[in-house]
Amino acid sequence: MSGDARFGLGRKVTLPGPLRLDGGVLLSPVDIAYETYGALAPDGGNAVLVCHALTGDQHVASEHPRTGKPGWWSRMVGPGKPIDTDRFFVICANVLGSCMGSTGPASTNPATGRPWGMGFPVITIRDMVRAQALLLDHLGVARLHAVVGGSMGGMQALSWAATFPDRVTAAVVIASTARHSAQNIAFHEVGRQAVMADPRWNGGDYYAAGDPPTAGLAVARMAAHITYLSEAGLTAKFGRKLQAREAKTFGFDADFQVESYLRHQGISFVDRFDANSYLYITRAMDYFDLAEEHGGLLANAFRASKARFCVVSFDTDWLYPTADSRAIVHALNAAAAPTSFVELSSPFGHDAFLLENPELSRMIGGFLRAGER
Amino acid sequence: MSGDARFGLGRKVTLPGPLRLDGGVLLSPVDIAYETYGALAPDGGNAVLVCHALTGDQHVASEHPRTGKPGWWSRMVGPGKPIDTDRFFVICANVLGSCMGSTGPASTNPATGRPWGMGFPVITIRDMVRAQALLLDHLGVARLHAVVGGSMGGMQALSWAATFPDRVTAAVVIASTARHSAQNIAFHEVGRQAVMADPRWNGGDYYAAGDPPTAGLAVARMAAHITYLSEAGLTAKFGRKLQAREAKTFGFDADFQVESYLRHQGISFVDRFDANSYLYITRAMDYFDLAEEHGGLLANAFRASKARFCVVSFDTDWLYPTADSRAIVHALNAAAAPTSFVELSSPFGHDAFLLENPELSRMIGGFLRAGER
Repeated sequence: MSGDARFGLGRKVTLPGPLRLDGGVLLSPVDIAYETYGALAPDGGNAVLVCHALTGDQHVASEHPRTGKPGWWSRMVGPGKPIDTDRFFVICANVLGSCMGSTGPASTNPATGRPWGMGFPVITIRDMVRAQALLLDHLGVARLHAVVGGSMGGMQALSWAATFPDRVTAAVVIASTARHSAQNIAFHEVGRQAVMADPRWNGGDYYAAGDPPTAGLAVARMAAHITYLSEAGLTAKFGRKLQAREAKTFGFDADFQVESYLRHQGISFVDRFDANSYLYITRAMDYFDLAEEHGGLLANAFRASKARFCVVSFDTDWLYPTADSRAIVHALNAAAAPTSFVELSSPFGHDAFLLENPELSRMIGGFLRAGER
Repeated sequence: MSGDARFGLGRKVTLPGPLRLDGGVLLSPVDIAYETYGALAPDGGNAVLVCHALTGDQHVASEHPRTGKPGWWSRMVGPGKPIDTDRFFVICANVLGSCMGSTGPASTNPATGRPWGMGFPVITIRDMVRAQALLLDHLGVARLHAVVGGSMGGMQALSWAATFPDRVTAAVVIASTARHSAQNIAFHEVGRQAVMADPRWNGGDYYAAGDPPTAGLAVARMAAHITYLSEAGLTAKFGRKLQAREAKTFGFDADFQVESYLRHQGISFVDRFDANSYLYITRAMDYFDLAEEHGGLLANAFRASKARFCVVSFDTDWLYPTADSRAIVHALNAAAAPTSFVELSSPFGHDAFLLENPELSRMIGGFLRAGER
């Protein structure tokens, strides 16, 4: 297997043929940037697909090329880790619509020779999954030992089980939901409006000028970031502590640490993410309603699946609260799918799935090993 | 009393002398726009001060001059209503820093002859209350039968009892808090950054050009508005219902009703509110920490008070949740203040205090009548 150019870090493939999207458009070409870790078993049966969240990327356990930071789930993926690259062939691909090498609004539209911008077609979570399925074909993976994801990654894991029931042996769905709620949509709409309110967004046509709408995107990120944290976590971490000063300044500087932190989150985000990709991926998440795709009954999404499921929520996650996971589990039970479900306790809200959590590690490690032949 | 130009709708007074602000600045002149309803008793003992919230105004029970809508609490204030203008002399004043006639950043700076803009001094909740106390002097009201407010109005009611213990007989504090939490500050900071990210904000100097930062202010309002509603309320009202269409458009129009609703909230807000006022008033709220003003112990704020207190929270309010009210009540109990406390049930989140709620009406009406001599 070694020496096979399809495997390893920093890979990219142009998928064959146009991809028919849920919106009816035939998209071509479709590049997918991805990474693989570990070795694919001769029978191809040890593949684990890790799906990333809204602003994630394929660098699940390798250094991020722009920020120089460790992979976003390097605590979970690696030799001897819960998603053990000594046992499993781990694949992580940048989602369709994103900006880390996979085709998205910043890619070149072959019809014009210029970036797609807002001419890029609106995509869905299922479109992302279909593109991943073509990537698996390319890699020679007929069937996944498991598909694993948190947040939007969990939506992809659910969509995988529903869309390709014959290709999924197990699915791990963490801090996720089967449908975006009105509040979820509302927060995303605020973010999109913040981007679009920035004159430098210019209808999505900002690539040539090299002057992207960083101010609007930073505001969008700040608003979203609040939803990733719990109120209690914010209070514990920041409370009303002042930022490097003894007293309030009676001005509009970042007097409070939480202000300084949020501003930093906004500013650092714009260095690594494309504003139009943010619009398209949030739209895909808002459109996600797995029941709707299956006659309005979520259980129907899982009727053809033979997969085992592991569903995990966090008690302080108010973005996708435990009730959302419970709705998934009810549907899985109704479809008679073998399902493990646990609500973990964490002070860190939605972000908990990305952070050190021994229980989460044990849960995922045990679930994946239990499925080995 | 009738014929007294101090009383009635649409009044305005220039307070005597400069106002010394918490930030150390002497502010002058200070205009306060206000309205009164009902008749002041000969002994001046039937006055009820109603304090408005962040984007509220003095038109508590009269038509809003810009929107033409009924007063924001006309269901609560009027003849025979819980705050009964047949019994009580009701005063409502536009807060310092606002934009409905009271002095704020859009007012003229006498030193320059131009609008203050960001040269306006940062104010506090206590500064607002001090200005209201001067207004009461003007009106001949030595002591309030009650001070009543929801949200930021509740902060003013608390500050009144703490700052002028001899002038407050009773205080009603609804859906409020004694300190802004890290999450509260975070949401406000997003709003401020949205305003400041709008190039038309221009450092706060946009009045002369007549071109205010409406796009940024609309985004700020949208983000804030989500915090005023409950997740369950949003789901009940909007869910994932589409806006006047049969199917998703695979575009970035407001496909979902909740998007259309939020956009409307943002757009209509900018017609009636000044962006700089939004910055200053949110800052005042973020600075609010009543315990901090009293040696770090909230109970100390109430030690000199002889007032009765009525504290009301709503079970779905996640902006100022019941725990915030409970902290107030604990402090009041520690200070041996007579206190009624109830958590009301409502699907409407923080906004519940503005909406029809028979229990709230009974609670406030009964509490105010119980204090009549």
